[in-house]
Amino acid sequence: METRPLILVSNDDSVSAPGLRHLIDCVSHLGDVIAIAPAEPHSGMSSAITVNSPLRVEHVDDHNGTPIYSVSGTPVDCVKLGLHAVVPRRPDIMLSGVNHGSNSGNSVIYSGTMDAAMEACMTGIPSIGYSLLHHSLKADFSQTTPFITDITAKVLRTGLPSGVCLNVNFPAQCAIEGMKIVRAAHGYWTEEFQKYTDPHGKPFYWLTGQFNNLEPDNPATDEYWLNRHWATIVPVRVDQSATDLLPEIGTLLGINP
Amino acid sequence: METRPLILVSNDDSVSAPGLRHLIDCVSHLGDVIAIAPAEPHSGMSSAITVNSPLRVEHVDDHNGTPIYSVSGTPVDCVKLGLHAVVPRRPDIMLSGVNHGSNSGNSVIYSGTMDAAMEACMTGIPSIGYSLLHHSLKADFSQTTPFITDITAKVLRTGLPSGVCLNVNFPAQCAIEGMKIVRAAHGYWTEEFQKYTDPHGKPFYWLTGQFNNLEPDNPATDEYWLNRHWATIVPVRVDQSATDLLPEIGTLLGINP
Repeated sequence: METRPLILVSNDDSVSAPGLRHLIDCVSHLGDVIAIAPAEPHSGMSSAITVNSPLRVEHVDDHNGTPIYSVSGTPVDCVKLGLHAVVPRRPDIMLSGVNHGSNSGNSVIYSGTMDAAMEACMTGIPSIGYSLLHHSLKADFSQTTPFITDITAKVLRTGLPSGVCLNVNFPAQCAIEGMKIVRAAHGYWTEEFQKYTDPHGKPFYWLTGQFNNLEPDNPATDEYWLNRHWATIVPVRVDQSATDLLPEIGTLLGINP
Repeated sequence: METRPLILVSNDDSVSAPGLRHLIDCVSHLGDVIAIAPAEPHSGMSSAITVNSPLRVEHVDDHNGTPIYSVSGTPVDCVKLGLHAVVPRRPDIMLSGVNHGSNSGNSVIYSGTMDAAMEACMTGIPSIGYSLLHHSLKADFSQTTPFITDITAKVLRTGLPSGVCLNVNFPAQCAIEGMKIVRAAHGYWTEEFQKYTDPHGKPFYWLTGQFNNLEPDNPATDEYWLNRHWATIVPVRVDQSATDLLPEIGTLLGINP
């Protein structure tokens, strides 16, 4: 008897996020699914790992036959500890999300969703992060179903190039026109903090701000197409070495290769 | 009167780390230095940001004339809040470290040191992360001084290509042979957790493990040269989009560009 593919699912919005259950429902007919997600929400945790405290893993729920485990740590902790202590065999694919909120543009660098995918990618497991451009816990994910099923099935069949995972973003509250394969839009964040004064007269700050897209009219970028109701797929390379620039940096620093 | 360059310094080992003070001493003759670092150690925090709690910034110390500020958050929080609320003008360069421990190979993905540098890079400030391959708080940084001064002075003069920062690692407890400009070695971590049983009979885990270098004999990589007592410089690109693979991913998923 052929073994069904094993699909490892995680996220950064925690075991209680509707997006996690939606993702399970999109792919459960493609294989055996195990979900391992943070016990608490960890948005903005990037590739953070827990080095100075212990971790626990617990079987906390089942969703339409899929066991859901919680880990008392970050999204990357979930993938590491899940692979170490939970899965019965090596997963054939790892999926992260569906995130409640965008991971387009360069916000991918802060994304727990994408860093969970990158962690699996580093161990050689094909991985995909899915995100919906809507923060609400009551967001409507239904439009994303055929896209998630289709992309996941294809990657299960063919794999992905070594060291590369996919970052898939979906527009929200609209019909999805189709899919575009693009790069991340370049930009930065502005007006990043709101300032307050505490009851003792001392200041404190809270992170806020908005993404300032430096190339809003560039059809080579994800933001361009998301704004026009397309889903976007960005292949993300784990190794950030700018190998094409080694000679230029050598010249700049006066160092021979 | 010409304004001296402004040098922003941060790290992930906290305001009390000797590596921070060493970095200040290496560059203080090159400009005005301001250090803004986490109040507590944040190794392994990657690009984590604090979104669900407030942040405080405090002037906590001075080191040979350089003010040191603490931020009650992550390394990336330090750069964001430092640029927003502390610096008197836009820094000409941002330096991170000197980290107590390696950021070579693909461990850069978990590195608070390098993600502080990447945060500055995203706002267009040339930035460099410095790390010493020794975890001890009593590590001897003295060998690194001429290299840090030289690299920093050159980057202050010429800048760096857009969207790229430098990841500099130094071997420890040896004479440094020289500098090599290379890419990060590829690998993954193994035997990642130690398992324990708590007094109530329930299991818990603690992250451990070691880097499994997939290409130990490849002179194109940082690990190769660090093992041979050279310092290594890896240019790190913030945008992880694998633009060279867009056609291949399109074929794989059956999507036209």
